[in-house]
Amino acid sequence: MNNPRGRFVHTCITMISMMILFITGCSSSGKSVSTDPLPSWNEGAAKQSIITFVEKVTKEGSSDFVPIPERIAVFDNDGTLWCEQPVPVQLYFAMDRMKTLAPQHPEWKDKEPFASLLKGDIKTAFAGGDRALLEFMMATHAGMTTAEFEGIVKEWIATARHPKTGRLFTEMTYQPMLEVLAYLRENGFKNFIVSGGGIEFMRPWAEAAYGIPPEQVVGSSIKTKFEMRDGKPVLARLPALDFNDDKADKPIGIHQHIGRMPIAAFGNSRGDQEMLEYTQSGSGARFMLLVLHDDVSREFAYGPARGLPDTKLGAFPPTLDEQAKKDGWTVVSMKNDWNTVFATAPATITAIDILLEPDATMLKHAAAANARLLE
Amino acid sequence: MNNPRGRFVHTCITMISMMILFITGCSSSGKSVSTDPLPSWNEGAAKQSIITFVEKVTKEGSSDFVPIPERIAVFDNDGTLWCEQPVPVQLYFAMDRMKTLAPQHPEWKDKEPFASLLKGDIKTAFAGGDRALLEFMMATHAGMTTAEFEGIVKEWIATARHPKTGRLFTEMTYQPMLEVLAYLRENGFKNFIVSGGGIEFMRPWAEAAYGIPPEQVVGSSIKTKFEMRDGKPVLARLPALDFNDDKADKPIGIHQHIGRMPIAAFGNSRGDQEMLEYTQSGSGARFMLLVLHDDVSREFAYGPARGLPDTKLGAFPPTLDEQAKKDGWTVVSMKNDWNTVFATAPATITAIDILLEPDATMLKHAAAANARLLE
Repeated sequence: MNNPRGRFVHTCITMISMMILFITGCSSSGKSVSTDPLPSWNEGAAKQSIITFVEKVTKEGSSDFVPIPERIAVFDNDGTLWCEQPVPVQLYFAMDRMKTLAPQHPEWKDKEPFASLLKGDIKTAFAGGDRALLEFMMATHAGMTTAEFEGIVKEWIATARHPKTGRLFTEMTYQPMLEVLAYLRENGFKNFIVSGGGIEFMRPWAEAAYGIPPEQVVGSSIKTKFEMRDGKPVLARLPALDFNDDKADKPIGIHQHIGRMPIAAFGNSRGDQEMLEYTQSGSGARFMLLVLHDDVSREFAYGPARGLPDTKLGAFPPTLDEQAKKDGWTVVSMKNDWNTVFATAPATITAIDILLEPDATMLKHAAAANARLLE
Repeated sequence: MNNPRGRFVHTCITMISMMILFITGCSSSGKSVSTDPLPSWNEGAAKQSIITFVEKVTKEGSSDFVPIPERIAVFDNDGTLWCEQPVPVQLYFAMDRMKTLAPQHPEWKDKEPFASLLKGDIKTAFAGGDRALLEFMMATHAGMTTAEFEGIVKEWIATARHPKTGRLFTEMTYQPMLEVLAYLRENGFKNFIVSGGGIEFMRPWAEAAYGIPPEQVVGSSIKTKFEMRDGKPVLARLPALDFNDDKADKPIGIHQHIGRMPIAAFGNSRGDQEMLEYTQSGSGARFMLLVLHDDVSREFAYGPARGLPDTKLGAFPPTLDEQAKKDGWTVVSMKNDWNTVFATAPATITAIDILLEPDATMLKHAAAANARLLE
């Protein structure tokens, strides 16, 4: 450093260091500088529990401190990050695919579940249970390359709209959860989607909608096969289930893709139970959150933690409410804890209109369980 | 900003901006500041091709520019990032596990492949081909929880040593490849391992050895099952293959875990062919590299791009040499392109000592192919 320019640079660096110290001092003494990381959350226990958790795991020297690489958070998608009613979004995608493909499949007119679905009768279509649903998904999700499928999903998600609200589906993501994703990201967390939905159905839009890149999406998948077509390698999508990323298989999906225990998990249904339990079982600070759909005027009321009615059993699966209370999970009431629901200005949904037609008993049961959970 | 402290901060920020501009000017005009990112690489076409690729995809405004999130690089492990001779490291692990478990399995004394392996006769043990190898791997890799297996691997890798060099296996990683990993990382790349080796065998040490976190390791896996044990959720490792991440299944593993096309791929054997082809098939700038094991005095000579002899066929699988030349892949001669081989001071290996005993014809064949590839 024996030239004037070098000495000047050295002086500059010293000055910058001193000024950074001064500025840091200013901002930590001026409390008004800090902004609310979760403005769509009402003040209350749920919001506070998120902030308390993030503050303690990021505080160096604290016994709860977690190094950045281990700050892994997992999020269910349907009903946790975006609306899953009256039926999960991917089912609309599959039905639109079916309509596009129907001219090539005249046999569908007489074959279930296609015959009923083509008439718009979802209930009869899936009376056959999982087998009928699987056959429908394979018929609409396989038979093309992975690159072609990505293009199909991108085109569909850019224009398809929710039948009740008229919004794009990506406009029905939950604003408060987008704030949680951003807040965690800013605090060194890596966010993963862990969904029962199709991994290839979510990846094409998850980065734009949630800031979650493809390599941080875990989901259900169908088998693929490497092939050379016209001298170019492709991955062909086969009509066979590879992995069903739901319930007890969610921790398996997490382990397979991430290889670390998450320290935070966010879900809303029976399908998320094992993921929440698995997350809680690790040592050190842990955070588990359950979104409760109890807001009939702004979204839907179908909780708690039940997901969609199980068409095969004809009833809701067992609830998570007792477990959530017993194990100290944060329970979020959409009605009370969120001042905004959707990512864009909310429309008003005035009636529950579930295509799967839950009966009055089921809705009463859900309402009672909601009340229990919020006690 | 109507207080003296606020005005001072504003002045500071303005000054910092100006000084940063000045410093940036200094460092870009002072060429001597730049250091060689690949010091263990000799000057030559291979080294230059890496640098040229990285410079062009990171240069904003260039037609080859690739945004940071799409800078995905995939690396084979055995023979590409660390030594895989005389047998892949995971086989040593499995043999040590077998010795530990043998007292609980008196039947192994009379049952292949265990009987021969217990006598140290690998060749006879695996005369049964893939079936025998699979049975051996399941017997030594399953039957515990994922957390227990992680502990077993960590303990083993911390002490187990290469039988010929006496080094820890993690000291037999290739220094030049560690430099490539760091160089790419510094240039915004996300590096993934994509190996035929066990995903759970690699994750416990890949971060320390390569700077590659668990969620960026793709490999072969066995099935697991979610279970509650003493009220705590665990993942039990089952004796059943889930995914064999090799050859035409490597692109499938890449697609499943990453969901993006890599723009750079590094391999050394037939097992990497489809991964290299798949990487090359994408649009835009692409980089494919093949490590050629032609350094009998510092490592082993068994190339090119052949991996281990195929015990079932009794011969090397087809070579990649013609393809590498035709398709413009970078071919790295360990002998000529690397001035250092191992991550720590290299020991001298004076003889090829392959436990699988390649015959003279095979070695002659390998030498001739090496020569062709370097023409």
